[in-house]
Amino acid sequence: MAENASYEQFELTRDFLEELQLLISKEDTDMVRQVLGELHPADIAEIYEELTLDEAKFTFHLLDHELAADVLAELEEDDRKQFLQFIPSEILANRFIENMDSDDAADVIQELSEEKRESVLSYLTDEEQVEDIKELLTYDEDTAGGLMAKELLAINGDLTVRSCIIELRKQAEDVDEVYYIYVVDKDYKLIGILSLKSLLTAQAHTLIKDLCNTDVISVNADETSEEVAILMQKYNLVALPVISENGELLGRITIDDVVDVIKDEADKDYQMISGLTQDVESGDSVYRLTRARFPWLLIGLVGGIIGAAVIGYFEGDIARYAGLALFLPLIAAMGGNVGVQSSSIVVQGIASGDLGIDGIGTKLLKELAVSFLNGMILSILIFTYSYFFQDSFPLTISVSIALFVVIIFASLFGTLVPLMLHKFDVDPALATGPFITTVNDIMGLMIYLFIARGIFGMFF
Amino acid sequence: MAENASYEQFELTRDFLEELQLLISKEDTDMVRQVLGELHPADIAEIYEELTLDEAKFTFHLLDHELAADVLAELEEDDRKQFLQFIPSEILANRFIENMDSDDAADVIQELSEEKRESVLSYLTDEEQVEDIKELLTYDEDTAGGLMAKELLAINGDLTVRSCIIELRKQAEDVDEVYYIYVVDKDYKLIGILSLKSLLTAQAHTLIKDLCNTDVISVNADETSEEVAILMQKYNLVALPVISENGELLGRITIDDVVDVIKDEADKDYQMISGLTQDVESGDSVYRLTRARFPWLLIGLVGGIIGAAVIGYFEGDIARYAGLALFLPLIAAMGGNVGVQSSSIVVQGIASGDLGIDGIGTKLLKELAVSFLNGMILSILIFTYSYFFQDSFPLTISVSIALFVVIIFASLFGTLVPLMLHKFDVDPALATGPFITTVNDIMGLMIYLFIARGIFGMFF
Repeated sequence: MAENASYEQFELTRDFLEELQLLISKEDTDMVRQVLGELHPADIAEIYEELTLDEAKFTFHLLDHELAADVLAELEEDDRKQFLQFIPSEILANRFIENMDSDDAADVIQELSEEKRESVLSYLTDEEQVEDIKELLTYDEDTAGGLMAKELLAINGDLTVRSCIIELRKQAEDVDEVYYIYVVDKDYKLIGILSLKSLLTAQAHTLIKDLCNTDVISVNADETSEEVAILMQKYNLVALPVISENGELLGRITIDDVVDVIKDEADKDYQMISGLTQDVESGDSVYRLTRARFPWLLIGLVGGIIGAAVIGYFEGDIARYAGLALFLPLIAAMGGNVGVQSSSIVVQGIASGDLGIDGIGTKLLKELAVSFLNGMILSILIFTYSYFFQDSFPLTISVSIALFVVIIFASLFGTLVPLMLHKFDVDPALATGPFITTVNDIMGLMIYLFIARGIFGMFF
Repeated sequence: MAENASYEQFELTRDFLEELQLLISKEDTDMVRQVLGELHPADIAEIYEELTLDEAKFTFHLLDHELAADVLAELEEDDRKQFLQFIPSEILANRFIENMDSDDAADVIQELSEEKRESVLSYLTDEEQVEDIKELLTYDEDTAGGLMAKELLAINGDLTVRSCIIELRKQAEDVDEVYYIYVVDKDYKLIGILSLKSLLTAQAHTLIKDLCNTDVISVNADETSEEVAILMQKYNLVALPVISENGELLGRITIDDVVDVIKDEADKDYQMISGLTQDVESGDSVYRLTRARFPWLLIGLVGGIIGAAVIGYFEGDIARYAGLALFLPLIAAMGGNVGVQSSSIVVQGIASGDLGIDGIGTKLLKELAVSFLNGMILSILIFTYSYFFQDSFPLTISVSIALFVVIIFASLFGTLVPLMLHKFDVDPALATGPFITTVNDIMGLMIYLFIARGIFGMFF
């Protein structure tokens, strides 16, 4: 890490943690206050993940209110929920929520019970903040409205640069980060954005509406957060204004919140394909880790049992030609692998909003071409191997044909399923999960054994 | 998409594309110029992915130079390389590079042949730009230096707010986006950052160094881009200053470039676990798609052949007790699944810089506990199933014990391998790829068949 940075960059070590825990157990409030006071809220949130709830609570009350509010905003949702239970509504409202931006405040309040929510809101003294939070609570969490904050700088386009700067000084008090100034008309409809650069370099008497850029990219409040993420990535936006149906400016979304959306989306897809049912980290409890991993393994087991039943149906054939057993895992695995490849390409295309402009038919035809090529080559390879190293010619033919058919089937199936799921508004990433892989495994076994029975029947 | 947005949001359709291609074939330059002139550079780059190279080149020359420079910066690296070959150095330099930010310019120049690189640089007229680009070219692409741009606002801390604003007016000409103003001392060492908010609300005679925030998070130029991404995500940064060993301000990294790094990292890990060897999209050519998918399938095939050899070694046992074949795919699949789960948890931990503070020993012990639990439950389930539905008791015992052992083995192996790879600076995501899965498949088969031979030996 950068040694010359003016800000001490923090790395959480076992030593640091043990020292802190010692200070806590000795109730050395001064030292705890000093140690944590020097840290960034994100670092404190990271430390809280390693402390017991009691230890964390003890230190939390020692932080100054603004820092504590920031830590609360940085905590993982699960940890925060536990935390919030122990903070009385009045303190939560007056010490912490009061110091939060509207979007963080709404996120925290959303996590409270209905009852506590009302009581926290009743303790807030800033009428405007209450109104902002209440408005934000009406939006679905996964929409542009759920992501946006109300804090922004909005200037009437009819002002001059000089009056704009006076107006900005007033508004800037409430806004931590200023990236753009939004320009609105008398009905508060968004008409443009003004960069700080153009404000800095403009003449004092210029009208804002003549200075601002009217090519604004904005979203409606009910747009999904995935769409917001795709838009901000594509157009390299740092902030995105959110408007109502009528074009009125409602709020703005900043890129840091969207980075979290992008990360979460990618993590969710990754978990699905790795066979995990929830967001787990190696630091989580054994119970949580086991619970996240068990469901896929169970589906795999059930799939394996169905596979065993399929093989059982052909047990007589295997008893006669034991060589048939040799390629059972190969065929099952190849079916699964090809299916995952196909699905994941579609899933990533959907996730990045970049499915291309081909229709389903064209996609399937292309998939057919790809799997035909791969299938042919692999089939010839397995034929060659089996021809020279296995002495059963019927077995060689069976496994070669079966491999080809399985690859074609699994790739078409793997392409079609996520497209269908997406069409019916189900998360297409499900297709990369255990269910489809298991189906491909089983189908592979059936295809192989039926083909083998036919081929062996011709030879014997 | 937002209907009331002031900027027409663009969605690429087959119709649009066909119309554009018609205009191109008719050489209707006015219409092409008009249609493309209204679009965002990112949209034009998207269109270019669907056009033939000749069509794209034709339209490219009709764009105004600034727009064309932006389109060039937005193109995917592969597409851009093809494009650059056809643009003479002089035109590339004077029309396009001249209009680019230093980081984009360096990226483009990096992709040129050594020879063309020199000649493009020699055609550039702005000495300062040439110097900036040459400096940026010295950094590795995957470091903070490779990500940063030289365009930034830097102000001497000894200036007053009033002189700062005058100075900013001068500097702002060259900087498109202003998020922060960096404050430096007389040696150009970074001492703080100044938000535009504090500048707006400050008194004219205040000294900048008294106004700025000295808790600056910065990175050294040789820090990896992964570290930069982790830092900017953790601390919700929109821009990050880059400094030299001595603390001098070198440049700044903006979040939009880091979003691409985050996305690319996540995509790479996802490709690895889905068995793709390169970044492919469903829109890519059949050849490219086949080439991306073939290697994993080949490794899978070789693994399957080794598996067949393992089973072949036990062919005699299977000929006697054909029931053994029933659970071959189940055991192989479970080994693979458990291994992928374990590896992916470690890989995600490493990717998010959030491996926790446990040592390798603790991690393995925890993994042991998790797999012990899952293994026990699944083992009891398969025992119950097999006891009631398969009439061979030795088979029931064999598969139950083998499943348990395989789960333990695969999970420890799956945890250890990515940790080891990471330790030796190899991409840990390799562990989620085909190689480890295949090893787990094969090991699973060996464990199962050896255990079965022992158990059956005891019974018969």
